[in-house]
Amino acid sequence: MALRARGAAERVVGVGRDPRRLDEARSLGAIDAATTDLSEAVAGADVVVFCAPVDRVKADVVKAAGVAPADALLTDAGSTKATIVEAAEADPLARAKFVAAHPIAGSERSGVAHARADLFEARVCVLTPTAHTPRERLDRARGFWSSLGCRVVELDPTTHDAHFARTSHLPHAVAVALASLVGPDLVPLAAGAYRDATRVAGADAALWTPIFLENRQPVLDALDDFSGSLAAFRSALESGDEAALRAWWDEGRRNRIAFDGQNRP
Amino acid sequence: MALRARGAAERVVGVGRDPRRLDEARSLGAIDAATTDLSEAVAGADVVVFCAPVDRVKADVVKAAGVAPADALLTDAGSTKATIVEAAEADPLARAKFVAAHPIAGSERSGVAHARADLFEARVCVLTPTAHTPRERLDRARGFWSSLGCRVVELDPTTHDAHFARTSHLPHAVAVALASLVGPDLVPLAAGAYRDATRVAGADAALWTPIFLENRQPVLDALDDFSGSLAAFRSALESGDEAALRAWWDEGRRNRIAFDGQNRP
Repeated sequence: MALRARGAAERVVGVGRDPRRLDEARSLGAIDAATTDLSEAVAGADVVVFCAPVDRVKADVVKAAGVAPADALLTDAGSTKATIVEAAEADPLARAKFVAAHPIAGSERSGVAHARADLFEARVCVLTPTAHTPRERLDRARGFWSSLGCRVVELDPTTHDAHFARTSHLPHAVAVALASLVGPDLVPLAAGAYRDATRVAGADAALWTPIFLENRQPVLDALDDFSGSLAAFRSALESGDEAALRAWWDEGRRNRIAFDGQNRP
Repeated sequence: MALRARGAAERVVGVGRDPRRLDEARSLGAIDAATTDLSEAVAGADVVVFCAPVDRVKADVVKAAGVAPADALLTDAGSTKATIVEAAEADPLARAKFVAAHPIAGSERSGVAHARADLFEARVCVLTPTAHTPRERLDRARGFWSSLGCRVVELDPTTHDAHFARTSHLPHAVAVALASLVGPDLVPLAAGAYRDATRVAGADAALWTPIFLENRQPVLDALDDFSGSLAAFRSALESGDEAALRAWWDEGRRNRIAFDGQNRP
């Protein structure tokens, strides 16, 4: 939708497993044509963007790299990067064509009915090139994601995964754990704090289970640090240590205030 | 502001410790008159509403009950109820005049500059009467909070505190712990999930520290259940158990979907 709205692509072909979803995407104007055959779709493509759950991206990239034209750019939108980059770089054709990407945009809703042409505007897109990434392809990947409205930054794949375990993956797991405590009897009493704290728990398990599994150790590390912070809170609360509670609160609050300062509404 | 906008009060007197804040409230049209003297303010009041941090409400209620007219209604807006009700009921005058209330409305922002006349519209207000609460005063409290636009419900104080430990107090502590993991280096990579998960970490420690301390055991219990849910997530992730991760996710997700169903945007 963003490509078409911005005139950045001549023709957008949608590839998926479910013909009904592809029909819906076509009727909503998200794509010009559709197919369930990956090879057919990428045979004449200039750019191929993989948006499947992260555990499927690896195999799809390798498969498409064997079929796509020699000068095609392959990129993705997965929330984890290290395992995808590793798999792509183990394949000579994928290594020559693929630039891993993570546009920081989206919501807990899935399906083309929730698609928006302005989704990427002013959002960060992280590219995770390595020493093996062809510079020409990297330049084109920068241009492609910029053409959707993204602000492009670069990180190495491992740093990306460690950072996003903290800024995104852990908050998703925490949202689900918080939601699990508020059953039907309590739902009528839940308001703003619960609503915002658990919003992303409405997302699809089929999308998030692979993210956790692909980014296992960084998520476990983030979870341990988070549990450490909660243990400090617990200890201060249990002993009634008001000064410690205030200091603990204000440390987290400072980070949140810094975020607000960088992200004016 | 809501009382004045709805014509529900002839005159609103603001009481506080800081004359500058009271001046600001008057100039913003939140109050008709102001004083730093609680006794002076309540001497001729029909209704007195306590909006101080929860650890201050107890003493203020008892003090005001000794000065307010015999037929005055005293009520509050505190996020915890059991300790406030206990303190009020230990004082004969407070017991005769006070009906504890918790309007489920507000935000992480404090100060009259963020006040809104429509804050209470269609929001739940929980009253926590006991066998000692005079029925006539309870009826008037229902009428008072309804006149601001609230939907009034009733719970006993202990149940209130246990429920709100889960729907509100724990989510606030969790927001702070999540924010503590995202320092200045990571802030530029944080987006929607972090923004919503940590919004309430921007609130004031002076407001939240007393809430945790007044509701200590229910918050500790909620924290233990939350930690149990995260431990299940951790164990499934560590062992790479995809089915267990999906089942865990979907259990939390169901509660969130139920919340969405009851709270159409």
